[in-house]
Amino acid sequence: MSGVNLMKTTALIMAGGRGERFWPKSRKSLPKQFLSLTNDGKTMIQLTVERILPLVAIEDIYIATNESYRGLAQAQLPNLPAENILCEPVGRNTAPCIGLGAIHILKKYDDAMMLVLPSDHLIKQKTLFLKTLRNASQVAEENSNLVTIGITPDYPETGYGYIRFDEEGSIGQAYKAAQFVEKPDLETAKVYFESGQYLWNSGMFVWKVSSILEKMEHLMPETYQGLKNIQQAFGTEKEESVLKDEFSKMRSISIDYGILEHADDIYTVPGSFGWDDVGSWLAMERINPTNEFGCVTSGNLVMVNTKNCILQGGEKLIATVGVQNLIVVDTPDAILICHKENAEDIKKVLENLRICNRNEYI
Amino acid sequence: MSGVNLMKTTALIMAGGRGERFWPKSRKSLPKQFLSLTNDGKTMIQLTVERILPLVAIEDIYIATNESYRGLAQAQLPNLPAENILCEPVGRNTAPCIGLGAIHILKKYDDAMMLVLPSDHLIKQKTLFLKTLRNASQVAEENSNLVTIGITPDYPETGYGYIRFDEEGSIGQAYKAAQFVEKPDLETAKVYFESGQYLWNSGMFVWKVSSILEKMEHLMPETYQGLKNIQQAFGTEKEESVLKDEFSKMRSISIDYGILEHADDIYTVPGSFGWDDVGSWLAMERINPTNEFGCVTSGNLVMVNTKNCILQGGEKLIATVGVQNLIVVDTPDAILICHKENAEDIKKVLENLRICNRNEYI
Repeated sequence: MSGVNLMKTTALIMAGGRGERFWPKSRKSLPKQFLSLTNDGKTMIQLTVERILPLVAIEDIYIATNESYRGLAQAQLPNLPAENILCEPVGRNTAPCIGLGAIHILKKYDDAMMLVLPSDHLIKQKTLFLKTLRNASQVAEENSNLVTIGITPDYPETGYGYIRFDEEGSIGQAYKAAQFVEKPDLETAKVYFESGQYLWNSGMFVWKVSSILEKMEHLMPETYQGLKNIQQAFGTEKEESVLKDEFSKMRSISIDYGILEHADDIYTVPGSFGWDDVGSWLAMERINPTNEFGCVTSGNLVMVNTKNCILQGGEKLIATVGVQNLIVVDTPDAILICHKENAEDIKKVLENLRICNRNEYI
Repeated sequence: MSGVNLMKTTALIMAGGRGERFWPKSRKSLPKQFLSLTNDGKTMIQLTVERILPLVAIEDIYIATNESYRGLAQAQLPNLPAENILCEPVGRNTAPCIGLGAIHILKKYDDAMMLVLPSDHLIKQKTLFLKTLRNASQVAEENSNLVTIGITPDYPETGYGYIRFDEEGSIGQAYKAAQFVEKPDLETAKVYFESGQYLWNSGMFVWKVSSILEKMEHLMPETYQGLKNIQQAFGTEKEESVLKDEFSKMRSISIDYGILEHADDIYTVPGSFGWDDVGSWLAMERINPTNEFGCVTSGNLVMVNTKNCILQGGEKLIATVGVQNLIVVDTPDAILICHKENAEDIKKVLENLRICNRNEYI
């Protein structure tokens, strides 16, 4: 293999999510991808863009988000051309989002390699990550198929989808993706993990624009037709209204359900580059160093007999005494005190706030 | 018994304490007696004054404190004559404090009944409390002895001193106080509790000014001489400097050690009027109602699966998820998160802050 791509590489970074599990730092007006959760001060989306710059020119990176976050995206990515921030008129899950990205790339290139990346994951080993993307690109370019990045599992996680791969029929570094499976229960996850035949579905994809649109044409013809209509209105005075009408009509569906689970020539490149989806505050322990008592700490703290806690303070002094396994997150108007075992129940706080119309905290 | 006192009743309320165990609400500049810890909005010292008003005229109530708290005392007790706020130049424990109160009362009366009361305790049943004080006053007036208020124990508390009483030799409602004992260990406390012969030492005393000064003259002659010197300088230009010199020279000693444990004609009137010394944040559960999940709450809170907690919020939203047995106290510049079992370790937070010279939080 030559390792040289002939085609231009572009990227679509999906940044429309809300990330409720990072409340109270994340809010409707400031979701997780626009937060800094590492101690380098950079936000998730800034890190996402930064790490692919060796592979993709900044002017070939597109951000898919919505109007509410356009300002945040522009402010955090000042070097990105403003027109590369694509605002979906309504949320329709990943398949229409990727379609919209694809037709925008076609404004500029007849065809191009397209990396599809979430905006709110972390990757520790950037060089290995880029190497994996290059391998995937090569397979996708030479064979015109859809390639997903699968993560070699470290443990039987129940919070991710899995990809079963088949070593027969592998192309280069890519295995045939034999089956996409939903988040398993622990017993099933253990079977998957021990079998060595499953990878985590990272939600990262590599394909040519032409390849994904061709698949959409066959498997999601109505969405495809909507995309064509949007494309035809580009540059006309109707551009915005057509986008709004057509996009709103599209079925809300993920790319996994809409395409990957129904196509038979999907490949997966296994990666092992310190990936973390940063799914909840519990991730802080994986992505940041802990002190001698197992605590991840930041901000203004005094700790007495405090063990295995995640403490995210700010200016206000937080004094902890005799506590363990707590998540404490302070912000100017709200503080969370949550047992680690109940990290998923943060959404109940938000439900409660919604019911009580306390929208200032949401 | 007639129940009528012939002598004027005065009171000395001791309000010089620092109350570190109520950090972060209590600070060096705002100790416990000046805080409101009940949901009626009144501070501890306001409640203390208010509850004795049926027995003592406001102009006969004296507050012993120090210069740092004079402004707080005046602001919280606007009806109290300013000259009734007695400022100790240095802290010398309760014996010199009580002596100072006694000679100030003698400025106004040849002799008087003197109630000595802490400023930071709570009493639920005020009528019973007043009745107990009246009984004690009658015994102290008719027999010129020192009377302490003993509290009938509810359980074997290890945090209080005890008074062993002797039913033989009782006068009216007062038993002879046979022995004062220090805070016992749990086993000893259980023996005391089960014997029915012990009362809690509440730190409340009733005696004539003449009686306590006479005891001081015999048992603490140097302190007594100092008090005479201070008294002689009253109204002269040397008043302040003599107070400072003489008071500073006095031995720092409690009235229990200095007098009560060495005198043989001490009496105790048992009281059972819902007394609480409000010794730590744990007292919140005893003095305030709890919700259906055993939580004592105030302020801006959202609770999800939160049990048996003491939550003292303010304006900032505090969201608790999956936690139990925590003490959470929010203030504008500091928040405490403490396991109930570690309430005593709050002082370690203050030690830590002192070591780090973070005096703004102390």
